[in-house]
Amino acid sequence: MMNQEEEKKVIEFCSINSINANRELIFKALCHSSFTNELAQNTSRILESNERMEFLGDAVLEFSLATLLYRNFALSEGEMSKIRAMVGSEKVLSKVARELRIGEYIFLGKGERHTGGAERESILADAFEALLAAIYLSNGLETALNFVRERLSHYLNKAVEGALVLDYKTSLQELTQARFGSRPSYTTIREDGPPQDKSFKVEVVVEDRLLGIGEGRTKKAAEQSAARKALEAILEGKMDREDLP
Amino acid sequence: MMNQEEEKKVIEFCSINSINANRELIFKALCHSSFTNELAQNTSRILESNERMEFLGDAVLEFSLATLLYRNFALSEGEMSKIRAMVGSEKVLSKVARELRIGEYIFLGKGERHTGGAERESILADAFEALLAAIYLSNGLETALNFVRERLSHYLNKAVEGALVLDYKTSLQELTQARFGSRPSYTTIREDGPPQDKSFKVEVVVEDRLLGIGEGRTKKAAEQSAARKALEAILEGKMDREDLP
Repeated sequence: MMNQEEEKKVIEFCSINSINANRELIFKALCHSSFTNELAQNTSRILESNERMEFLGDAVLEFSLATLLYRNFALSEGEMSKIRAMVGSEKVLSKVARELRIGEYIFLGKGERHTGGAERESILADAFEALLAAIYLSNGLETALNFVRERLSHYLNKAVEGALVLDYKTSLQELTQARFGSRPSYTTIREDGPPQDKSFKVEVVVEDRLLGIGEGRTKKAAEQSAARKALEAILEGKMDREDLP
Repeated sequence: MMNQEEEKKVIEFCSINSINANRELIFKALCHSSFTNELAQNTSRILESNERMEFLGDAVLEFSLATLLYRNFALSEGEMSKIRAMVGSEKVLSKVARELRIGEYIFLGKGERHTGGAERESILADAFEALLAAIYLSNGLETALNFVRERLSHYLNKAVEGALVLDYKTSLQELTQARFGSRPSYTTIREDGPPQDKSFKVEVVVEDRLLGIGEGRTKKAAEQSAARKALEAILEGKMDREDLP
């Protein structure tokens, strides 16, 4: 299925990450739909993209995180759910995907690559999940669980300690600089309450457009909340439409 | 942890269902929070309820269904998600729980038992998930996956064929007869459109109270939709309040 050049990339990817798994499966995990669609349109090569594997890998991840939480921490089911959602978020998974250098090895269509697909959090997080499925299908669940433990324990422990802060402000700035060559600007539009019980409302503007309003008990929290909304708005393509915020 | 009587029930439950697993774990899976809360209030016995196990069991279930779908069917990830949601629904899981006679063996607080807790779909479905966790923790994932296959393949195959209809009308009738000794009545309040594009609006009345309005392209679909809403209303305790429908 792979050509020589593709196989070389896959071998290199496995080697730098000490992954020992079926190469065809790893290749499939790294095939974004933009790549397989492009091949189908321009050549006679029909490949399956990583989308079905992502579905399976998501289940492997959720199970692995649930097991690690259940076995290692005395938390209620509500706390376990919350922590799993944080650690299994696109934000964290895309970080881990970057640590694995997935962006350099993923196969993308030309259009997707030129618009920064190799840096897009959703693409990276999905590929990480597909990679997990490839490891599970090659070597069984125990190996996949160990891979999750190895790669995500750090985030899991931080989340349990309440110290996992997902930095949306940095992500937003990276994205707006890459896409528009400009930085977001934050304005506090309300500040209420006595010193011990303050509340802040912040708006964030990108390219002269109001993209998000966030609230929080600190200015930083309100900014993070506004940044998260702006990120979502941009990633959902709302910058191109008129229905903002 | 268990007393003699409890152990007897647990052994019987395992025996009728050919389940071979750690008895203390099975006991925990069958301990609803209303039971453990009651014990904590009235005695010095402190037991853990099945809530944490339910969290883990849910992950075991989602993983098992994902694996069965991925390995056995050529479906897109969207189709797999949809089918997994149907098969993993409270509706289906409570049916399977009834096949396992969980309602007869679950440990409930007195209040919960008297208000029909042993028949409540959410309690049954949750206990089934906790049971899955008990099997997984006792015998490993392969055994849990086989248990899911054995108990849910039928529903999975039907869902893939598009033949899994969740029958809310029957559930509603069973519930109203058990609780009020009466049956729901359905009235078609609107019928629109040409023969090839009809739309129906149906209302359902239980004990002289309008409990749900449903719409659909067939009368049956509209009735099912109304029945689902009525079921939810009753199970959420809305029959006791004035804010209906």
